[in-house]
Amino acid sequence: MEYDFAKRTDKMNGTATREIFKLLSRPEIISFAGGLPASEALPQKEIAEIAASLLNGKDAMRILQYGTTEGFKDFRETLADYVKDVGIEGIDIENILVVSGGQDGIDLMCKSFLDPHDKVLVEDPTYLAVLQILNSYEAEAIGVKSEKDGLDLDDLEEKIRKHRPKMLYVVPNFSNPTGKTYSEKKRKAIAEITARHGVMVLEDDPYGKLRFEGESVKSLKSFDCAGNVVYLTSFSKTVSPGLRTGVAVGEKQVIRKMTVGKQGTDLHVSNLSQLIINEYIKKYLETNVERSLSLYKMRRDAMLGAIDKFMPSFEHTVPQGGLFVFGRLPGGLDAEKLLPKAVERNVAYIQGNVFYADGSGRDTVRLNYSNASPNDIERGIKALGALIDEQLRL
Amino acid sequence: MEYDFAKRTDKMNGTATREIFKLLSRPEIISFAGGLPASEALPQKEIAEIAASLLNGKDAMRILQYGTTEGFKDFRETLADYVKDVGIEGIDIENILVVSGGQDGIDLMCKSFLDPHDKVLVEDPTYLAVLQILNSYEAEAIGVKSEKDGLDLDDLEEKIRKHRPKMLYVVPNFSNPTGKTYSEKKRKAIAEITARHGVMVLEDDPYGKLRFEGESVKSLKSFDCAGNVVYLTSFSKTVSPGLRTGVAVGEKQVIRKMTVGKQGTDLHVSNLSQLIINEYIKKYLETNVERSLSLYKMRRDAMLGAIDKFMPSFEHTVPQGGLFVFGRLPGGLDAEKLLPKAVERNVAYIQGNVFYADGSGRDTVRLNYSNASPNDIERGIKALGALIDEQLRL
Repeated sequence: MEYDFAKRTDKMNGTATREIFKLLSRPEIISFAGGLPASEALPQKEIAEIAASLLNGKDAMRILQYGTTEGFKDFRETLADYVKDVGIEGIDIENILVVSGGQDGIDLMCKSFLDPHDKVLVEDPTYLAVLQILNSYEAEAIGVKSEKDGLDLDDLEEKIRKHRPKMLYVVPNFSNPTGKTYSEKKRKAIAEITARHGVMVLEDDPYGKLRFEGESVKSLKSFDCAGNVVYLTSFSKTVSPGLRTGVAVGEKQVIRKMTVGKQGTDLHVSNLSQLIINEYIKKYLETNVERSLSLYKMRRDAMLGAIDKFMPSFEHTVPQGGLFVFGRLPGGLDAEKLLPKAVERNVAYIQGNVFYADGSGRDTVRLNYSNASPNDIERGIKALGALIDEQLRL
Repeated sequence: MEYDFAKRTDKMNGTATREIFKLLSRPEIISFAGGLPASEALPQKEIAEIAASLLNGKDAMRILQYGTTEGFKDFRETLADYVKDVGIEGIDIENILVVSGGQDGIDLMCKSFLDPHDKVLVEDPTYLAVLQILNSYEAEAIGVKSEKDGLDLDDLEEKIRKHRPKMLYVVPNFSNPTGKTYSEKKRKAIAEITARHGVMVLEDDPYGKLRFEGESVKSLKSFDCAGNVVYLTSFSKTVSPGLRTGVAVGEKQVIRKMTVGKQGTDLHVSNLSQLIINEYIKKYLETNVERSLSLYKMRRDAMLGAIDKFMPSFEHTVPQGGLFVFGRLPGGLDAEKLLPKAVERNVAYIQGNVFYADGSGRDTVRLNYSNASPNDIERGIKALGALIDEQLRL
C-alpha cells in the first residue's frame, strides 16, 4: 500500500546525521558527535537505592497506578523550590508541568502556540532538534545573529519587526551547539524586547548546572515581567537521561494549555522516574553535580589543549560549562564533506550546518567533550588536526 | 499578556469531565467513572524485585544513559514474540516501536497521517481521548454505527465512500466505553474493506488480555494483507499504568514515520520502564494476568447482579472482559444532568455523550467495575438505581 502521510512529515526526516551515527557504534571510533552526559557521572548506586526504597515503601502503589498529567504534587513542590536557584521566585505548583525530558517541553510549547507558517526566531546556530520540531509543526525557523554574550539585540528587534514571530527559542547557558552563555544584560534586554512585542520566549536550560568556571547568571525567566517566558530544564544532564524527566515553568494559563497538550500525548511522565528524581534532588543532586564538574572541566581542558596543539587554526568558543565546543574550520573547509574522511580515521563530530536555520555555517563543527577520556580526546583531535592539515595542502 | 494560542488548541479543553473528577477525590465517593486497573492486581513485589536486579546489575548503565527512539532491541524482540499471541506473525524488530503508553501510539499515528480537516472514522461510541487527540490535529471524527459484534459493515463502507477518511480507529476487544468485542468475521471484513479503500486502521488493544469469559479472537492486524493496519497495545492494564509503556506494531515504513515523530516529542520511553516490562513479560505476565481475571470477573458479576436488582430498566452491554459496562438510562434521562445529583449521593459514572463523535447518546452512561470492591459496587449501583427511580417519578 502507498501511504498518504501527513504534510507535516514531508520535512521530518529524523536526525540528519543518522547514517553517520550508525558508523559510530564501531568501538574504535572516538566520537565528539554525541551530547551524552559522562557515563562516569551517572549515579547508579543512588538511583538503585532510591528505587528500592520507593518500590518497597508507601509510595509503591501510587507509582504503579495512573498519575495526573501535571505530575505528582510533592514533586512539583520540590521543583518550585529547585528553580529558585535560577532566580525564579513566587510561583506555586500550578506554574509547573513535569515533562518527559526537555524535548517534550519544547514539543508541548510548540503544540500550544504554533500554527502552520508561524515564524519562530532561534539563535544562529541553535539546537538541532528544535529545527526538526518546528518542521513537524510546519512552522518557519528564522535565525538571529549571535554575539559572544548572546543574541545580537538589534538583529533580534529587527527580525521581530520584520517577521512578527510567535516565539523565540534560546539556550542561554552553555548553548547547544556553541557552548556560549548569555550575559545578564542580554537576558534582561531579551525579556524586555520580547515582552514589548508580545513574543513568547522558550528558555531551554539543560546545561545550567554544569558550570565549572565563572559566575552563574540568573535565568532569563527571572527577568520576565509580562508572563511571556517559559523556562525549561531537564534532569538528563544532571541525573540521568534514561529516566526522561524535566520541568516546564510558566504562567498558569500557559502551563494549563501545555498540560492539556500532554494529556493527548503520553498522559504523564513515568511515575517511577518522577519520584526517583524527586528524592534525588532532595538528597544528592547538588553534591553529586558539584563532584562531576571537575570531570567535565578536565575534559574541556583536554579538548582546548589538544585544539591548541593540533588544530591551532580552528577558531572556537571557550565554554565555561556544558558539553560543547563550537568552531570554524580553516580555509573554508566543508565540514559535511570532511566527516566521512574523519570517520575513516576513527574520529567523528557533527557538521555545524545542521544547527543553522538556513543550513549555512558549512565550515563549522560541534565538538562534544563530555563522554570521552582526556586521552581519547587528545588522540581524536590529533587525528582531526592531521586530516585538516592534509586537506588544506590539497 | 494575552496569549495567542495555536488554532488547534481551541477545541482542546482537557477531559470534559475534569470538574466532576475533582469531586471524586472525596473518600466517601464510590466511583464508576475511572478506567483504572484493580489496585490489588498491580504487581508491586515483582516490580520492586525486577527494578532492584536491573539497577544493581549489568543493565544499570544503559538504563541511565540515553536510549534509542525505537526502544531497546532486546525489549523489541520480546515484543515481537509477545504479539504472536494475538496472531501477529512474521515480523521483526523494525516493525515495532516502543511507545509511552497507548495514548502515545494514538498520537504518533495521528501525527504521521493526519492533516487538518482530514476525516477519521470511529465507532460510535468510542474512546474519549481519541476524540480529543483528533481535535488537537484539527481532524474530524465521524461515528460509524455499532452492532453487538462490532461495526455495522454497511455503514462503514458507506461512510468510507462518502467521507474518504484517512483512518479508522477501533478497540475490538472489550471496547472503551462499551465493553463489546468484535467477532472474527467482522475483523476479517473490516481488514478487507479498509484495505480495498486504502484506509489506515489503528487497532487499539489495551484490554485484550483481560478476558475472563468466552474465547479469544485473533487481532484485526492478523487479517491485514495490505499493510494498512497498525496494532497498538499497552501494559497499563496488565502490568502498571504508572510506567507508561506500550507498543505499536505495523509496516516498517509506517513505524519509521512514527519513530521520527517520537524523536520530536519525548525522544524515547523511560529506559527503566522498558526493561522492567521486558523482564515482567518474560517472568510473570501470563500467570499474574491469569490470576487477576477472577478478581475482574467477580467485580463484573457484582455490577451485573446489582444492575439486575436495582436498575432493571437499564439496557446494557455484558462484557466478557475488560473494565466497562455501557448502557442506556430509562425514560430518556439525561446522564450529564443526572451526574451532579449522583455525586451528591456519593456515586459517580461518566455520561456517555462524551464518547460519541457528534455528542449524541445523552441518555447513556459508562460504568467502570474494575477498581471498586463488590460491596461498594452493590452500594453504588443501589444508590444510582434509587436516584433513577426518583427521577422517573418526577
